Amino acid sequence: MTGIEQLPVRDELRGKTPYGAPQLDVPVRLNTNENPYPLPEELVQRIAERVTDAARTLNRYPDRDALALRTALAAYLTRTTGFEVSREQVWAANGSNEVIQQLLQTFGGPGRTAIGFEPSYSMHGLISRGTGTGWLSGPRRADFTIDTGAAVRAIAEHRPEVVFVCSPNNPTGTAVDRGTVTELYEAAQAAGPSMVVVDEAYGEFSHRPSLLPLIEGRPNLVVSRTMSKAFGAAGLRLGYLAADPAVVDAVQLVRLPYHLSAVTQATALAALEHTDTLLGYVERLKDERDRLVRELRALGLEVTESDANFVQFGVFDDAHATWRALLEHGVLVRDNGVPGRLRVTAGTPEENDAFLDAVRAVTKETPR
Amino acid sequence: MTGIEQLPVRDELRGKTPYGAPQLDVPVRLNTNENPYPLPEELVQRIAERVTDAARTLNRYPDRDALALRTALAAYLTRTTGFEVSREQVWAANGSNEVIQQLLQTFGGPGRTAIGFEPSYSMHGLISRGTGTGWLSGPRRADFTIDTGAAVRAIAEHRPEVVFVCSPNNPTGTAVDRGTVTELYEAAQAAGPSMVVVDEAYGEFSHRPSLLPLIEGRPNLVVSRTMSKAFGAAGLRLGYLAADPAVVDAVQLVRLPYHLSAVTQATALAALEHTDTLLGYVERLKDERDRLVRELRALGLEVTESDANFVQFGVFDDAHATWRALLEHGVLVRDNGVPGRLRVTAGTPEENDAFLDAVRAVTKETPR
Repeated sequence: MTGIEQLPVRDELRGKTPYGAPQLDVPVRLNTNENPYPLPEELVQRIAERVTDAARTLNRYPDRDALALRTALAAYLTRTTGFEVSREQVWAANGSNEVIQQLLQTFGGPGRTAIGFEPSYSMHGLISRGTGTGWLSGPRRADFTIDTGAAVRAIAEHRPEVVFVCSPNNPTGTAVDRGTVTELYEAAQAAGPSMVVVDEAYGEFSHRPSLLPLIEGRPNLVVSRTMSKAFGAAGLRLGYLAADPAVVDAVQLVRLPYHLSAVTQATALAALEHTDTLLGYVERLKDERDRLVRELRALGLEVTESDANFVQFGVFDDAHATWRALLEHGVLVRDNGVPGRLRVTAGTPEENDAFLDAVRAVTKETPR
Repeated sequence: MTGIEQLPVRDELRGKTPYGAPQLDVPVRLNTNENPYPLPEELVQRIAERVTDAARTLNRYPDRDALALRTALAAYLTRTTGFEVSREQVWAANGSNEVIQQLLQTFGGPGRTAIGFEPSYSMHGLISRGTGTGWLSGPRRADFTIDTGAAVRAIAEHRPEVVFVCSPNNPTGTAVDRGTVTELYEAAQAAGPSMVVVDEAYGEFSHRPSLLPLIEGRPNLVVSRTMSKAFGAAGLRLGYLAADPAVVDAVQLVRLPYHLSAVTQATALAALEHTDTLLGYVERLKDERDRLVRELRALGLEVTESDANFVQFGVFDDAHATWRALLEHGVLVRDNGVPGRLRVTAGTPEENDAFLDAVRAVTKETPR
């Protein structure tokens, strides 16, 4: 049998393992920041209707420019942020991972570097590697906020072509304020000019308004979003970005032609018709997220402020042992490798109760 | 207004335009090798059924490894090629373009090169550029077949890490024989070891058996396929590959996690249930393709032997003028930039009649 090591794979891939959380079959899965609420049945039926229509012309290539979908996404952003966004400012792809990959292929790549402030969404670094972009790990404070001064110095010193700012940040839940983003943008323009990518995958769950309006007058600022979380559609793989129309033109130089299938476009359009219902679930999840923060703190745990649909908690001497102990109680959370910390997704009230019970049992069993 | 040229895009993208045929609204569109037969209504209903099921758990991430789909694709390959293929030998992605991109990210990339024998599928070179892989244009004979000796010499001289062999070749329709592939494979192993990617996007339309069985005992040989053409599902974006299981493991180091949506997996599984009907359409299209070859030759045109669902014809003093003249007659074909030649997709009998009438009118109008 042939092993990977016998194939002529790129050197930097040797010995690596594929990204992905363990997919384990346990009663309470709170490990991948999925939305616990299934789509309402009316929406399921609407998806079936729209996909049936799309299937009738499935022998033809899909709309390469996804115009209807980008129009609907622009309307959604305009409505929810109060900032007027046009179709020309929006681009969509198979998950925000593909959006990020296209941005890195366009603005990063061989001989260029990208920076993120870690711990943060690990795919930023992994997709950088996958696109031949050098990766720089920028600093965060002990409370997981970005130290603006230190970040500005890192940008000035290393002059990365792409700067990632994840807000709310995964896995810590930390939101980034406007002032930090504008300072980092100025630093990136002075050092570059370089692109600043604000990853708002969890934006709808934040206590604060979207950073989207910052794209006004900042042609090198991109805000990326996803339908995986707020729209309860992780299975759909629909990510998008808003930016200057020139950025949208630029990523089309590297996007694979017809990258977004007709069934994906149809399903996303159906979901966007049901925005109100889905944002109602978001409100419930924000309440549950806040409850998790309160109750974990009441248990004496250290909990990072969260603007997302998940909560980072600790501090454990051996976070992985606690992760395993919670699993033994039927609750799957995420060990992102942040020392002493774990991350739990806000689930349904029942799931969160089960999680809190498990934490109580586990912290009683294993005194910290 | 900001233009692309003011953005910090990579140098090699400057001045480029996005790939894609003009999408024009004309009565007879024979320009993108789409299957002219819409999916049968039973299949449309089955897609609706399966997508409805998938939509009920759309809040969850899809099966990251697409196990059910890869099992069904392996069964299809086994049945249609007579060569036993297992799930572990199959990988799927959003169109064969994404399959090729993943292969280039794994085996090509910065500091490495890929070769294709041109004219061939231009995305091989474009995705190479998009992944930072150097591109080498290898030779073909005047009749558009691969000159094995010249190809072997090019591989020995340039030592590319990836060798593309497109069979049947797009845009010429030319099939490649087993012996050529095995000779190129040997040359690539002597020079590398390097990967050989046989692109069989149009494999089902060939007069010859698939080259797939060549993967036996050749761990560096990959065969890529698509559901866009034979399955009449260009709108679905489902490409796949068959190779040694180690290759499948290797591409997982660069694939974006959960790259294949639940609706894509559901739709593809439905289509695979209707293989017999869809392969019936393939038989009709092969007959029509052969008729196009005969009738174009009867008109005195030079027609390249075709094993695909399209036909390359010429020779025109000004191919683009002929392309435009056909368009004025309501028929859209493809000008791939092969000097003096155009490419027409085999459509329905009525579409092909309209095309042949237009050719008669145009060649009468503009004596060559």
